[in-house]
Amino acid sequence: MNTFGTIYRLTTFGESHGPAIGGVIDGVPAGVAIDLEQLQRALDRRRPGQSLLTTQRCEADCVTLLSGIFEGKTLGTPIGFTIPNSDSHSSDYEHLRDAYRPSHADYTYTAKYGIRDHRGGGRSSARETACRVVGGAIASQILASKGIEIVAYTSQVGDVVLENDHTMLDLSMVDSSAVRCPDAATSETMQRLIESVKAEGDTIGGVVTCIVKGVPVGLGSPVFGKLNARLAAAMMSINAAKGVEFGIGFEGAKLRGSEANDRIVCREGRVRTLTNHSGGIQGGISNGEEIVMRIAFKPVATLMMPTPTINDKGEAVTLEPRGRHDACVVPRAVPVVEAMAAMTILDELLIAQTVHL
Amino acid sequence: MNTFGTIYRLTTFGESHGPAIGGVIDGVPAGVAIDLEQLQRALDRRRPGQSLLTTQRCEADCVTLLSGIFEGKTLGTPIGFTIPNSDSHSSDYEHLRDAYRPSHADYTYTAKYGIRDHRGGGRSSARETACRVVGGAIASQILASKGIEIVAYTSQVGDVVLENDHTMLDLSMVDSSAVRCPDAATSETMQRLIESVKAEGDTIGGVVTCIVKGVPVGLGSPVFGKLNARLAAAMMSINAAKGVEFGIGFEGAKLRGSEANDRIVCREGRVRTLTNHSGGIQGGISNGEEIVMRIAFKPVATLMMPTPTINDKGEAVTLEPRGRHDACVVPRAVPVVEAMAAMTILDELLIAQTVHL
Amino acid sequence: MNTFGTIYRLTTFGESHGPAIGGVIDGVPAGVAIDLEQLQRALDRRRPGQSLLTTQRCEADCVTLLSGIFEGKTLGTPIGFTIPNSDSHSSDYEHLRDAYRPSHADYTYTAKYGIRDHRGGGRSSARETACRVVGGAIASQILASKGIEIVAYTSQVGDVVLENDHTMLDLSMVDSSAVRCPDAATSETMQRLIESVKAEGDTIGGVVTCIVKGVPVGLGSPVFGKLNARLAAAMMSINAAKGVEFGIGFEGAKLRGSEANDRIVCREGRVRTLTNHSGGIQGGISNGEEIVMRIAFKPVATLMMPTPTINDKGEAVTLEPRGRHDACVVPRAVPVVEAMAAMTILDELLIAQTVHL
Amino acid sequence: MNTFGTIYRLTTFGESHGPAIGGVIDGVPAGVAIDLEQLQRALDRRRPGQSLLTTQRCEADCVTLLSGIFEGKTLGTPIGFTIPNSDSHSSDYEHLRDAYRPSHADYTYTAKYGIRDHRGGGRSSARETACRVVGGAIASQILASKGIEIVAYTSQVGDVVLENDHTMLDLSMVDSSAVRCPDAATSETMQRLIESVKAEGDTIGGVVTCIVKGVPVGLGSPVFGKLNARLAAAMMSINAAKGVEFGIGFEGAKLRGSEANDRIVCREGRVRTLTNHSGGIQGGISNGEEIVMRIAFKPVATLMMPTPTINDKGEAVTLEPRGRHDACVVPRAVPVVEAMAAMTILDELLIAQTVHL
Repeated sequence: MNTFGTIYRLTTFGESHGPAIGGVIDGVPAGVAIDLEQLQRALDRRRPGQSLLTTQRCEADCVTLLSGIFEGKTLGTPIGFTIPNSDSHSSDYEHLRDAYRPSHADYTYTAKYGIRDHRGGGRSSARETACRVVGGAIASQILASKGIEIVAYTSQVGDVVLENDHTMLDLSMVDSSAVRCPDAATSETMQRLIESVKAEGDTIGGVVTCIVKGVPVGLGSPVFGKLNARLAAAMMSINAAKGVEFGIGFEGAKLRGSEANDRIVCREGRVRTLTNHSGGIQGGISNGEEIVMRIAFKPVATLMMPTPTINDKGEAVTLEPRGRHDACVVPRAVPVVEAMAAMTILDELLIAQTVHL
Repeated sequence: MNTFGTIYRLTTFGESHGPAIGGVIDGVPAGVAIDLEQLQRALDRRRPGQSLLTTQRCEADCVTLLSGIFEGKTLGTPIGFTIPNSDSHSSDYEHLRDAYRPSHADYTYTAKYGIRDHRGGGRSSARETACRVVGGAIASQILASKGIEIVAYTSQVGDVVLENDHTMLDLSMVDSSAVRCPDAATSETMQRLIESVKAEGDTIGGVVTCIVKGVPVGLGSPVFGKLNARLAAAMMSINAAKGVEFGIGFEGAKLRGSEANDRIVCREGRVRTLTNHSGGIQGGISNGEEIVMRIAFKPVATLMMPTPTINDKGEAVTLEPRGRHDACVVPRAVPVVEAMAAMTILDELLIAQTVHL
Repeated sequence: MNTFGTIYRLTTFGESHGPAIGGVIDGVPAGVAIDLEQLQRALDRRRPGQSLLTTQRCEADCVTLLSGIFEGKTLGTPIGFTIPNSDSHSSDYEHLRDAYRPSHADYTYTAKYGIRDHRGGGRSSARETACRVVGGAIASQILASKGIEIVAYTSQVGDVVLENDHTMLDLSMVDSSAVRCPDAATSETMQRLIESVKAEGDTIGGVVTCIVKGVPVGLGSPVFGKLNARLAAAMMSINAAKGVEFGIGFEGAKLRGSEANDRIVCREGRVRTLTNHSGGIQGGISNGEEIVMRIAFKPVATLMMPTPTINDKGEAVTLEPRGRHDACVVPRAVPVVEAMAAMTILDELLIAQTVHL
Repeated sequence: MNTFGTIYRLTTFGESHGPAIGGVIDGVPAGVAIDLEQLQRALDRRRPGQSLLTTQRCEADCVTLLSGIFEGKTLGTPIGFTIPNSDSHSSDYEHLRDAYRPSHADYTYTAKYGIRDHRGGGRSSARETACRVVGGAIASQILASKGIEIVAYTSQVGDVVLENDHTMLDLSMVDSSAVRCPDAATSETMQRLIESVKAEGDTIGGVVTCIVKGVPVGLGSPVFGKLNARLAAAMMSINAAKGVEFGIGFEGAKLRGSEANDRIVCREGRVRTLTNHSGGIQGGISNGEEIVMRIAFKPVATLMMPTPTINDKGEAVTLEPRGRHDACVVPRAVPVVEAMAAMTILDELLIAQTVHL
C-alpha cells in the first residue's frame, strides 16, 4: 500500500537505486498558489549531506513537478513528480545481494516478495521519505493559508533529553541547530553525543516532538478514524519509528483522573482548556488546542563495524562496513514528521468539509 | 469513518443509549466454522459488572448474529449483528445535555456536528468497543485455525508496573486476575490501588501489553501500510489510548545500534533473531518473531467528585457525580486490544495472499 | 464488497431467509431532519405484493432504525438499521439445495465460496435491494432539501416501448401505474403483456429510465471517478441489470458530431445547452442539465415451468416450479434505481465540497 | 479520483500539454517477468498518427519505467512511469483559453475547479488514456501467464454494423484493419465512412466489442462489487463512452425468460452453459464462459468546421477549426477498452484470492 490519505492522497514509488523516485498527489485543493522554491527548500532540509552529522551522499533531491500546476496555481488535478537518483553507488551494495542486515528489511522483503532490490535498501530505503516531504511541503503551503503551522524538533538523542517543553522553547531556532534541537545548550550536547557514537562506528536513537498550531476544533472522526489514530499511523509509517504518544502519553498511565483532566473554560468567547494533557485531541477529535505528539526512533541499523549475520542460504557471514550512513536519523526525520503531520491535517480538514451539506 | 480494515472489514454503529449497537463484518473468509458460545464469552470479558473493580451496570452485551453464517459455517457474505442496549438509565445523563465534561468528547462532538446525543456519551461511549470485540472474536477463531494466538494483559496501573516481561509470565493466568495481570502479587497490588483510587472518587491510568504469537513472516506492506503503522492506528482508535510502542519502543531512543539490533541466525532451518527488540516487525513487515506492543491508557475522565466545567453557553457549571463508571479502564481494555490486534492481523493475512498471483 | 460510496457509504448484510437483512449508513450529513414515515413509504414501493403483477409474498419490509438519529435529526454518526425476514417459506427452497437454477447465481456462488445458502437465493436475492432503498430514501430526503429530485419510471417492457421521452411525460403519474409507466395507454399495454407472459409461466425484461433534476454543475471527478462511471457501477450492481446508457447512449454511436454536440448558450446568466444529448454529463462532470440514463433489465430467471438443469454432482435434474416470483422485475426495480442514483448523487455532492479548502 | 482498482491499482497524472503524463501501478504481483518491448507496442497501438484515419500528431508515447522492476522482474513494489509530452503545439489552443467547446469538458472543469489548463483539453484530453494502456499492458502480460486473453474490436462505426458476432470472426485479424474491425469487408466500409465524414470536417461515433477469454469462475463480488458493475465503471470512465452492456444487454429487455436463460450442462467435467446470453457473468460473478461486453462511443466533439458557442463571460463566439483531431475515436479506443478490462480482471483475480484463508 503505497498511498497515504483519503482525499488529499500521496502515492509514492521508487527504489533508492533505480532511475528515480517520485509520486502523485491527488485531491489537491484547486486554485492555490504554490511556491516552488519553498518546496525545494523543504526537500533540502531532508536530504543527506547537510552537516558532518548526517551522511555525505551528494543526492541533489531535486524535484520536478510534471502536472497539476498551471500558471503557478493548483489545477485540482493530480500533481505528478519525480526526484532522480543521481548519486547511486550501486556497487557499494553488491555484498548485500544475498546477505540480510540485522534489524533491516532485507530478510522480511525477501520472505514476502521472493525477490528484492538489494541496492541501498531498495524500496525500504529512507530515501523514499523524500517523496513524503514533497507531499507534505505542498500540504504545508496550503495549511499556512489557513493559519495552521507545523513545527517538529529533536527532543531527545540517546539519553540526552530536552527538559523544557515546547511552550518554553523558541521554535524558530530549530533550523539553527545541526541536530534540529531549538535549545542551544542541549543541541550542543546532542551533537557531541552523535559525534562520539559515530566515531565508534555506532549509531544512536532519539525522539522527535511535533506541534501543530492553529488547528480548528472538529478534525478527526469518531471510532476508527480518530485524529490520533490517523496521526499515529502516519508517524509509525516513517522508517525506524518504534513508538508514538499524544499529550501526556505514556506518562498518563501513571496519573489519576483528577490530575490528567483538562479543565474547560471560556476565554474571549472561545472554549479553551487550562491545561493540554490531551495534546489537542479529545474523543479522537481536535479541540482547538495545540496538537502535541512525540515519536521515538530506534538507532540506525547499519553500523560502521563488522556485523555477523546470515545470507539467504542460512550461512553465517560477516558484513564489513561500507557506504555512508547516518549515525543518528533523528535530525533528518524532523522534516519527515512535519510532512506526515501536514498531509494528515490537510486531509482531515478536507474530510471535515463533508460533515454538513 | 466507522469502518476498520481493508479486506476483513468491520463497520460499527450505535449510540450507547439508542435501541442497539451493532455492526457488519465484511470480507470474512468462507467456509470457516464459528463457535457462537466462544464469541459470547469474548463479549462477556469486556462487559461491565465483572467485579467490584469495574462498573456495576447490568448490560447483558448479548450479541445476535443476523447473517453470514449458515449451518454453523461462514458463507463469505457479511455478518450483520446487533447488541441491544438493555440497561439505559438515560435520565442519569440529563444534566449533561448542555454541559461539557472535561477531557471527554462532549465539546468536540458538539463543535464538529452541531448536535450530540448526550446520553451516556452517545457514539463516543466505550460501549461501542463491544462491537469491536465481536469482530475481533470472529477473527481470533479464524486465526486460531492458522496457529496464531493473541494475548493481552494489564502491565501497569498507575505507578504499579509489572516488572517481568511476557517471556517470564504464565499468560494463561490473565483471566484469573481481576485486573487481568498474570502475576498474582502485582495483580494484588494493582487491585488495591484501584480500590483506593475508587474510594476517593478518582480514576487511574495504565498500560496494556499485547503479544501476537505464531505470526508468519511477511505480513504488512512497505511504506504507508507498515504492519506497525496499521497496528498503531488500531490501538490508538481505542477510547482513552494515548500512546503505543513496539518492541523497544521509547526505550529504543536511548540505545545504540550495537545494542538495539537483533542478530539474525538460522535455527532448525528457520531464520530467527537472537533478541526481539524489533517487536516482531522489521521494515514494517513481520519477521516471524512474536509481535510485542504496549498501549498507554489515560485515567477515565469521569470522576465521582464535583467537577467544575462550562456548558454550551460558555457558563461555568459544576457537574455532580452521577451514574456508574470504571475507576480504571485498563482491565476491560484488554479484550478490546486483543480484538483490534486480531482484526488487523487477519486483514493483513488476507492482503498477503495477493502478493503473488 | 458490500459497501457502496466514498463519503456517504451504505454497507449492507443479509441473506433472504436469515433472521434479518439490514445495513449501516455512514457519512450522513449531520443535523438533517429525517421523516421516518416517508422512509417507510419508500420501502413499501419496492416490496412484493403491491399488485397482481408482482409477487404475492407478504414481507412487511418494515425497517427499524437503531442509531444515528436523535430527536428527529441526523447525528452525523452511522445509521444502523434492520429489516426482519418475516415470511420465509424456507422449505419452498429445499429442492434448490443442490441444484443450479439457470441464469441465477447458484452455481457462481457455490464455485466462488464453496458454500451457499440456497434458501431464496441467499445473499443473491433481490430482497437485498430493500437495504439500498433505505440508504437511498435517506439520501433523497437530504437531496430534496437542496432542490435535487430523482424520478425513475418503466420505459420499456418486452417490445412495448414508451415512445415519448421524459420531457413530454407527466412524471407525477408514475405511481398511478401498476407498472410504473407514466403514460396511461402504454402502461395498460405493458400490464397486459406482463399478465399474458405470467399466464404462460414465463417472464419478461424491460428498461427503466431515470432522471435527476436540479443537479448542480461540477459533480463527478475527472478520469476514473467520472459521474457516469460511478452511476454506471451503481446501476449495474442492481440484480438483473445488463446495460446502462447516458443521454444519446448507444444511439450516439450512429451519429455525427455535428448532430450529437450540445450547443452551449447563456440563458438568464446561466450556462445552458440547447439540447441534452450528453445526458447532463460532459467530461465526466455534471453540466447542470438533467441527468438522463436508461438501464436494461433481463427477464427474471425463475420460470413457473419445469426447467432442465444440473445439480452440484453434475447430474441432469429438472426443477419443478415452486414459490412466488415476479413475472417482470422492472416495476419494482424503479425505486431501486432511484435509490442507487440518490446515494451516488449525494456522495458526489459531499465529495465536491472537498475541491476547495 | 485518479486511482483505479482495489489491489492492482493505477494512479495517473498529467495534462496533455504539461511536461509529461504518467502514473504509478501499485499492487503488482511480485516476481513476474515483464517484456518491455511488448509494453511499448501496446502504447503504439493507441497513439495518434497510425493511419490517415487518426490524427497526425507525432507523439512518440514513449514510456519510461522508473521503479518496481529489477533485473527484468516485478519487485511487488510500485511501478512508476512517465510519458513525455513531446509534440505540444500549445499555441494551437490559445483561442480556447476562454471559450467552451460544445460537448467538451471545458465548461464543466471551469465550473468545478475555477481554473483550467485550456491547452489540448488539459486533464480531460484523451491523451490521459495512454497511462491506462501502460497499466493494462502490464496487467495483460500477467493475465496471459494464467491463460487469460482480452481482445476488443470495432463492431460499429456510425450505421455500419458488423453483423457477425465474435464467435464467427477471426479475432487475430483486428490489427490488420485500419479501423480495428476483424471483418475485411466491413472494415473497408467503415474506413470509407470515416474518410467521407472527415472530408466534411465532421466526426462519427461507434461501438467497441470486448471479449475476455479464459476467465476462471468466481471473479466478482456480490452486491456492489459485481463484476459487471466494476467493468461498467471501467468502461464508462473512458472518454466519450456513453453506454455499456453485457451479453444480451439492451436486447435482453425484449426477451422472455424462456429465451434469455442460459441452460446449464456438464461437459467434460466442467459446468458450462449452452448459450451465453449472460455474457459470462451471473449474479455479478464470472461463470467461466467468455465475458462479452459492448461499449458505445459518441462522435468526437471537436469538429473541423466553425462552431458557435460562448466564452467564460457568457458572450457568443465562434470557434474556428484548428489543430488535428480524430474523425472517429473508436479504432484508438480499442486498446484502451482492452487495458481497462485487463486491469479490472487482474484486480478481481487478486481479490478472489482473499475469499479463503
